[in-house]
Amino acid sequence: MEGRQGGKAGLQARVGGSCEKWGFSPGCLNKEMNASLKPAVFGATGYSGFELVRLLARHPAASKPILVRRDGESGGYVDLSEAYPQLAGNGGFPFQNFSWQQMKNAGVDVVFFATPHEFSRELAPEAIAQGFRVIDLSGAWRLKQTENRAVYGFAENPEDAPLDSSAVYGLPELHSCEIKSAKLLANPGCYATSIILALAPWIRAGFVDVEHGIVCDSKSGVSGAGKTPSTKTHFVEIDGDFSAYSVFGHRHSGEVLEQLGIGGGSLQFTPHLLPIPRGILSTIYVKLAKPVTSEELEQALVGFYAGKPWVRVFGAARLPQIKFSLNTNYCDIGFSLSPDGKRAVLVSCLDNLLKGAAGQAVQNMNLMFGLDEKAGLQ
Amino acid sequence: MEGRQGGKAGLQARVGGSCEKWGFSPGCLNKEMNASLKPAVFGATGYSGFELVRLLARHPAASKPILVRRDGESGGYVDLSEAYPQLAGNGGFPFQNFSWQQMKNAGVDVVFFATPHEFSRELAPEAIAQGFRVIDLSGAWRLKQTENRAVYGFAENPEDAPLDSSAVYGLPELHSCEIKSAKLLANPGCYATSIILALAPWIRAGFVDVEHGIVCDSKSGVSGAGKTPSTKTHFVEIDGDFSAYSVFGHRHSGEVLEQLGIGGGSLQFTPHLLPIPRGILSTIYVKLAKPVTSEELEQALVGFYAGKPWVRVFGAARLPQIKFSLNTNYCDIGFSLSPDGKRAVLVSCLDNLLKGAAGQAVQNMNLMFGLDEKAGLQ
Amino acid sequence: MEGRQGGKAGLQARVGGSCEKWGFSPGCLNKEMNASLKPAVFGATGYSGFELVRLLARHPAASKPILVRRDGESGGYVDLSEAYPQLAGNGGFPFQNFSWQQMKNAGVDVVFFATPHEFSRELAPEAIAQGFRVIDLSGAWRLKQTENRAVYGFAENPEDAPLDSSAVYGLPELHSCEIKSAKLLANPGCYATSIILALAPWIRAGFVDVEHGIVCDSKSGVSGAGKTPSTKTHFVEIDGDFSAYSVFGHRHSGEVLEQLGIGGGSLQFTPHLLPIPRGILSTIYVKLAKPVTSEELEQALVGFYAGKPWVRVFGAARLPQIKFSLNTNYCDIGFSLSPDGKRAVLVSCLDNLLKGAAGQAVQNMNLMFGLDEKAGLQ
Amino acid sequence: MEGRQGGKAGLQARVGGSCEKWGFSPGCLNKEMNASLKPAVFGATGYSGFELVRLLARHPAASKPILVRRDGESGGYVDLSEAYPQLAGNGGFPFQNFSWQQMKNAGVDVVFFATPHEFSRELAPEAIAQGFRVIDLSGAWRLKQTENRAVYGFAENPEDAPLDSSAVYGLPELHSCEIKSAKLLANPGCYATSIILALAPWIRAGFVDVEHGIVCDSKSGVSGAGKTPSTKTHFVEIDGDFSAYSVFGHRHSGEVLEQLGIGGGSLQFTPHLLPIPRGILSTIYVKLAKPVTSEELEQALVGFYAGKPWVRVFGAARLPQIKFSLNTNYCDIGFSLSPDGKRAVLVSCLDNLLKGAAGQAVQNMNLMFGLDEKAGLQ
Repeated sequence: MEGRQGGKAGLQARVGGSCEKWGFSPGCLNKEMNASLKPAVFGATGYSGFELVRLLARHPAASKPILVRRDGESGGYVDLSEAYPQLAGNGGFPFQNFSWQQMKNAGVDVVFFATPHEFSRELAPEAIAQGFRVIDLSGAWRLKQTENRAVYGFAENPEDAPLDSSAVYGLPELHSCEIKSAKLLANPGCYATSIILALAPWIRAGFVDVEHGIVCDSKSGVSGAGKTPSTKTHFVEIDGDFSAYSVFGHRHSGEVLEQLGIGGGSLQFTPHLLPIPRGILSTIYVKLAKPVTSEELEQALVGFYAGKPWVRVFGAARLPQIKFSLNTNYCDIGFSLSPDGKRAVLVSCLDNLLKGAAGQAVQNMNLMFGLDEKAGLQ
Repeated sequence: MEGRQGGKAGLQARVGGSCEKWGFSPGCLNKEMNASLKPAVFGATGYSGFELVRLLARHPAASKPILVRRDGESGGYVDLSEAYPQLAGNGGFPFQNFSWQQMKNAGVDVVFFATPHEFSRELAPEAIAQGFRVIDLSGAWRLKQTENRAVYGFAENPEDAPLDSSAVYGLPELHSCEIKSAKLLANPGCYATSIILALAPWIRAGFVDVEHGIVCDSKSGVSGAGKTPSTKTHFVEIDGDFSAYSVFGHRHSGEVLEQLGIGGGSLQFTPHLLPIPRGILSTIYVKLAKPVTSEELEQALVGFYAGKPWVRVFGAARLPQIKFSLNTNYCDIGFSLSPDGKRAVLVSCLDNLLKGAAGQAVQNMNLMFGLDEKAGLQ
Repeated sequence: MEGRQGGKAGLQARVGGSCEKWGFSPGCLNKEMNASLKPAVFGATGYSGFELVRLLARHPAASKPILVRRDGESGGYVDLSEAYPQLAGNGGFPFQNFSWQQMKNAGVDVVFFATPHEFSRELAPEAIAQGFRVIDLSGAWRLKQTENRAVYGFAENPEDAPLDSSAVYGLPELHSCEIKSAKLLANPGCYATSIILALAPWIRAGFVDVEHGIVCDSKSGVSGAGKTPSTKTHFVEIDGDFSAYSVFGHRHSGEVLEQLGIGGGSLQFTPHLLPIPRGILSTIYVKLAKPVTSEELEQALVGFYAGKPWVRVFGAARLPQIKFSLNTNYCDIGFSLSPDGKRAVLVSCLDNLLKGAAGQAVQNMNLMFGLDEKAGLQ
Repeated sequence: MEGRQGGKAGLQARVGGSCEKWGFSPGCLNKEMNASLKPAVFGATGYSGFELVRLLARHPAASKPILVRRDGESGGYVDLSEAYPQLAGNGGFPFQNFSWQQMKNAGVDVVFFATPHEFSRELAPEAIAQGFRVIDLSGAWRLKQTENRAVYGFAENPEDAPLDSSAVYGLPELHSCEIKSAKLLANPGCYATSIILALAPWIRAGFVDVEHGIVCDSKSGVSGAGKTPSTKTHFVEIDGDFSAYSVFGHRHSGEVLEQLGIGGGSLQFTPHLLPIPRGILSTIYVKLAKPVTSEELEQALVGFYAGKPWVRVFGAARLPQIKFSLNTNYCDIGFSLSPDGKRAVLVSCLDNLLKGAAGQAVQNMNLMFGLDEKAGLQ
């Protein structure tokens, strides 16, 4: 019993403060629509970075992003369209050498880090100090508990403690209020997004026997492993294959535990590598804490995500598939109740580069700057 | 507690009788090597049927298989190499019209059914009555309990009761003794093989808290869905996609329950469709019934499969991947123990058309006719 | 020599009339921007139809398309989002039963046929007679010469002769002027688009020795074969395979010959089936008619497509790849000149469902209704 | 005219000497079957090397191969089964440190180089000097003409001239006689094998207008690019894509020209990268030199390959597809004659790692040591 209550308490604690409930909070101040938002992007050559540039380039309220590189960090490219000829015919996406002063002069409002976590851990504090708002797509600032951060191997710099504390976990369906005023936004992990969004409504409703243990069997496309070539991402190795990895040890576990307020012993999370370029499907097995109908389970999802434009509830009639959410910012959620009513399976899908990374980052930018949550994402 | 003991009891009961333990039983009579075994195959045009023909055609102790069709049941092909030009240059694989008498005249020893279960349900009793030994690759004869068979929608013909009872579930690593004398051999389902072989050693050793519930999250390549074209197997639908199906309702559940001797409430089995042609990986989550080391877990697997040529234990050092077992008759098994020692994950892989179908059928044929279990499978 | 000149003459003849040159013709009347264009679509359940609906649904100058079905022609679906759950969350795309009167009452301006050619051959004349403008994505109305149409197996109805004559071949980069006033627009074939756009500039410039023969080796993704399931599009058959088909006999040959004004003996076109869902790449081999530099070859392409927003010239520096044009309306063209300067290879790529079908149809709609050629396609 | 005759002369010249015609030469001495042939392999960790080890390990006349590495050249692996767990359960494939003396002591008969050409260029002469027979899978020794070798960037060491001259181009269907006595066998390139085998019969028969030019449009799976990771072989880059490369500049051109005895101006060869792991399909376009029937074309192929076990002629009835030859040592050849009888298209397929590399190497080994040409390849 304690574990289950602990789950709910934890969820509330994460939300708490001046915002009284999860989700959209009408009491929060909305800035005026800012039609000329100026973004800058570190790490544009990676898969998430490229998607981010594509989204920002056609965002109705943002001007063309500035692509920033430090020495050698753009892979030797002068323009992003050299790495991604998909961008040809759109006027060029030149890299600029890194300079806070030039970014200020250019009127940058928000700095995105689509970089390794070490990079973000180093430069995000500087960016904040320079007065920029920061959206970080890495795992550098997502975790509140020091022991959970340990998996990343950071040196824990005492000067970073205030930022670790004030950084906002950017899952808009849970934290829209804090996101609006965030200075440092930690964009969630792709697996974590698929798991937290599926489980949060039922855990909050008290439907899940958390103490019994939750199994999250997740499967991701290869872009989740990044663009750096390795034997593990070689086409000949991946095609026709399928494998589990990081059993009991994946970095995203900490996010799930902290966000759902559950203890480590209650979660078994196994990621797998799918032979597809993008997309995540999580199959989540729960024991129900009390008798509940399929309609109640569905209503808990529907009610939780009412007014949330980027979650689609498929319910019990049809399960989501990876393809349905590809190239969109949706997280799709469906479920099935066991015939004896004691157990249920949740299935959630999303595009790991969009709702799992760049799309969610833009969704967060929209909230941070008082824009329509859907702007630039349709 | 009862569930767990029920599990072990069930396993023993399945084996029981004159064979005193699972696995190879030296007291069983081995026939003399039969160098001119004559097989006949129904259903050669399907994916399993084709693999079966390929295996039999190069089997050192079998002569070229006779391919039998009823009206229209070979898809209009006169020779199997029209459907599978891969076979070109091997002298032809002509279909013969169905006639028990001609099969007798040809000296057929064993009849394989690589057909839909309705077909096998209809013709296997005739074949037995004609004096042939039968290996059936469908689900027609695998299940002992009437309520488990219901999922197939058979009309339960009282005349079939003796055959339902005497049919041997052809998982050689569990039932080699009964297999040797089987008249009607029910070749196991592909998913069921991957799950039963992974779980049997630990359940038998009493390591698994069966009552807590076992989660089997399985993923299969598309050939498991058969060769009949449908929207669900269209390349454009499958490529880049991944989906769960038959949650809480897959036909192979009954086999797993009966073979492992556990109750339906203890198993959550979810199959998924992988965008690859062949291969199965099952990720199996168990709660341990008692404190046990990784070495003990590995030893339970290694010991159980000692002398079994077609199971490879990968242990805790490296998990199997689908690719390792493709185009082989191996079932590969590995595992990972949780840091707190309370839970474990098993991963098993096999080629659904070989160890999951045609390869296992040949392995069973080898045992039934006193041949080396590895003959024709290397 | 005659063949080569014939080639150029043919090209001019195709364009001729009141428009003085290929491409954009400033003298043509542009209608006022029509912000509430009302489209109707037959055949929305196919791959091209679905893409068309997606494009129209977000087109800034078009209202939500009406989806029309005749008996059974929507595959039993009440709403397109049942067939394509990708569309979930967008308010529904219900099918309406076919009725010209209801389409009139609804204010339909343009009727799209994303249907088999027989269907279009039957209903397009009726639609014209009812006063609708028609955009046909099938091969029904593309060919001017009776002998070229024979490949489709139409009964040649004398009443259709005026429509065969007045139908406009909707390749906007060649025929924008006629397109603007077209009543019946024949949207080009996917292969034909990739070949004609690559060859037209050099043939017009007199660079190609047409009489020597042109080899077009084209490769297409599987969606080009349509959505109807068959053994040929079964995932297990396609994945890992690659094959040529319809050598010397593909239906798109006629379009290429008519549009480029060359004789059948001058074209060797071989289509191939790629194990990818979408995209076409054509590798085109020509003998040069005269000494010409790489710069002249590139300039001929660049000049020809100046002001054409949906062709990107990659030139000799980097060849296009299928991925660059996927999910866009671009046709990408590049080339390589042989070291001895006597031969050249053109490579063109496009997305067969967009520039090769639905995207080009919308581009044509834009021209027909005086809209920006890029509207709804970015 | 000269070009065409040059073609035939060239072919004869390549064959010439004591063997009177292409193909099997009954006058050549067959050694006794050598049941204990001892092979050694450099470069076992690459894709071709791994296939070679698999073939040799089950070869009935060869003992388990010795895997040899120089410092660091096995990727840090102690046993090949670490890199390829597919090999598990077969008793281990340990690497040995490089030492000619140890190889002699072990009784090695033949040394395979499945290594980069620089490696083979350096060590093959030593191996010959040590008295081993050598089969080299790289491009190091395939080319007779210095200008053709230039593409590899070798320093031309005068000491190597005798070996360049005596090395035998190991295409068994053309050079079985020389192969039998070869000391240094240069195993052909994968693309070259698919092209030469398709064209040789018709060129020899005088059917091809060589001077007009031959277009070879070839497509290969990704394993042809080797196992070293790079952005170009990253799964996310390859999947769903297709591209041409090395237009007018691929290294295999020289082999085709030398073996077919044609001039560089007569060949346009464009390789493409298919999103599949293995397999090559070449589409070859020729102008016919004289009127010829489809039956004559087919007979030329059938006659040429009579008695050749590893070429299958599909003829005009059905074209080969990549899948038909995968995991076999076959080269499959089919064709189509144009309706006007003036042109023809040849299609040839093979598995680039087998008939295009390791399988052909074993076929050559069989010939070199007087074994059945099919031994170990079925």
